[in-house]
Amino acid sequence: MGVLETSGDTVILVMEVVGTVAFALSGVMAGARARLDWLGVVVLAVVVSVGGGTLRDLILDVPIDWLTESWPLLLAAAVAVVAIPVVERVGGDLDSRAHVLVADAAGLAAFAVVGADVALDQGVAAWAAAVLGVVTGVGGGVIRDLLVRRRPAVLSGQIYALAALAGTSLYVLLLEVDVEPLVATWLGVLTILAVRLAAIHWDWSLPVLRAPGGDEDED
Amino acid sequence: MGVLETSGDTVILVMEVVGTVAFALSGVMAGARARLDWLGVVVLAVVVSVGGGTLRDLILDVPIDWLTESWPLLLAAAVAVVAIPVVERVGGDLDSRAHVLVADAAGLAAFAVVGADVALDQGVAAWAAAVLGVVTGVGGGVIRDLLVRRRPAVLSGQIYALAALAGTSLYVLLLEVDVEPLVATWLGVLTILAVRLAAIHWDWSLPVLRAPGGDEDED
Amino acid sequence: MGVLETSGDTVILVMEVVGTVAFALSGVMAGARARLDWLGVVVLAVVVSVGGGTLRDLILDVPIDWLTESWPLLLAAAVAVVAIPVVERVGGDLDSRAHVLVADAAGLAAFAVVGADVALDQGVAAWAAAVLGVVTGVGGGVIRDLLVRRRPAVLSGQIYALAALAGTSLYVLLLEVDVEPLVATWLGVLTILAVRLAAIHWDWSLPVLRAPGGDEDED
Repeated sequence: MGVLETSGDTVILVMEVVGTVAFALSGVMAGARARLDWLGVVVLAVVVSVGGGTLRDLILDVPIDWLTESWPLLLAAAVAVVAIPVVERVGGDLDSRAHVLVADAAGLAAFAVVGADVALDQGVAAWAAAVLGVVTGVGGGVIRDLLVRRRPAVLSGQIYALAALAGTSLYVLLLEVDVEPLVATWLGVLTILAVRLAAIHWDWSLPVLRAPGGDEDED
Repeated sequence: MGVLETSGDTVILVMEVVGTVAFALSGVMAGARARLDWLGVVVLAVVVSVGGGTLRDLILDVPIDWLTESWPLLLAAAVAVVAIPVVERVGGDLDSRAHVLVADAAGLAAFAVVGADVALDQGVAAWAAAVLGVVTGVGGGVIRDLLVRRRPAVLSGQIYALAALAGTSLYVLLLEVDVEPLVATWLGVLTILAVRLAAIHWDWSLPVLRAPGGDEDED
Repeated sequence: MGVLETSGDTVILVMEVVGTVAFALSGVMAGARARLDWLGVVVLAVVVSVGGGTLRDLILDVPIDWLTESWPLLLAAAVAVVAIPVVERVGGDLDSRAHVLVADAAGLAAFAVVGADVALDQGVAAWAAAVLGVVTGVGGGVIRDLLVRRRPAVLSGQIYALAALAGTSLYVLLLEVDVEPLVATWLGVLTILAVRLAAIHWDWSLPVLRAPGGDEDED
């Protein structure tokens, strides 16, 4: 994580921790809704938290990060273990509560910009780094939805991948024009946070494509 | 792409371009049927176009081709952007129109034979190269179907993977017996085209397995 | 496969063969229930048999094993070709018969411990090796369930991944405390077999998480 490493920024790390907790919670909730067993719920929490980074690392052909840096995976598993009895008692809407949504936005912002940074370190083109940042931020949620057989939330109307794309695109553009890495990082992160939180607050959504003559999906 | 490179064949390239357009269109249509938002539709178009090659490159452990050769990904995204307003007006059966099916067959043929060629360049066995050619040709469609939660079309009755397998098997066999690479390439490509177009024209399909005592799938 | 290679153990190989047959059969049955065509059924049989090892090798960034050691893939395909006419006549519950369940447990045990061993050879941490052993044992079944759009069986109540985790954890722990590799291997394998067979025999299952206020899954 070259750029971020040299900037020595602990705020990004805090956002990653907060985001990992929120991502793991979304896995727990999705597992509860799909009536998985508790081991399945732990697996789902872990998959949401590390899935995006794993996809990115596979595509970049760099070592998978959780093989060497294990705290995100272990934290996600711990969150699941703590959350399971809470969910059984409190019920199933933890992941739509306001503070969890904010934590999730923080995770999206940190993961996406860090993901773009990791990609740039491998020498890929700027646009590909922006895309791989989005993959890092949303990949875990897509795998989660596949495993519990839901329509991938990120593809159906939410301003989520788009928020990530706005931030990672800004980040790589600013680096291209030689803006200070730390400034680029923060402008990227804040863009994602701002777009995502605004979308949640004002209930923005992307228009859904409707094909008049097409056969309708069953759900 | 050793063999094809030395044969300097631009017809294959044209078929790849035509195929990328057709594959992207199938992603747009699948996205419209699943009521994804427009960003999800663009993502799906891209995934169909580059998904098969990405799977092949991951399995072969070579650099993912769209990180260095970006035109297929960008072309697929452009096709989606152009197709979305058309689909909203014209309706949902673009991908079953005759010329789109022919373009899709051209893409399948080019992608599969090029994919087998890439695999042979990595020194894998001939049969594995034939299989990886098929993966290249059909992998994007399988990921598309997973994301919109449809039964993978390629596994349920169409002569599609089988057409690809016939062509890639012929291709690697001909190379094994020292046939001129250019001749092998064309015989492979034409076999896929012929089998696929014949299957479309005469409505051939593979027999579906039915287990008398088995519990039936719900759809 | 360092440790196992030096211990020269053919019993593990026999268990892998038996397990490959059982895994392939589960793919055939899942394909029949989802009404795939015969090529789709062969593909599914192969995917169950080699999917877990492929995921492990991708994560570890080592060459995919079926590119160099092709017997598991070819055996799985052969099993499917033989099983398809049988299934069509005999019906759909082959994979819940007692001897197939025992063969499947043997496969799970062998694949998981061998998978953990492959991971340790790459120098990953002990806990990651235990997890990757589980991925090796259950990954093929998860991909199978995704392709036929079923809820992943391994995440929904069966003592299956848990049996694998118990055995791979014991295996890596014993190696950490310098137990003889051959002894560690057998204690790991027998743990998985014992837990899995006990779970089948006494119909053990993991508690399913229920979120009182959560919206219920549709199936």
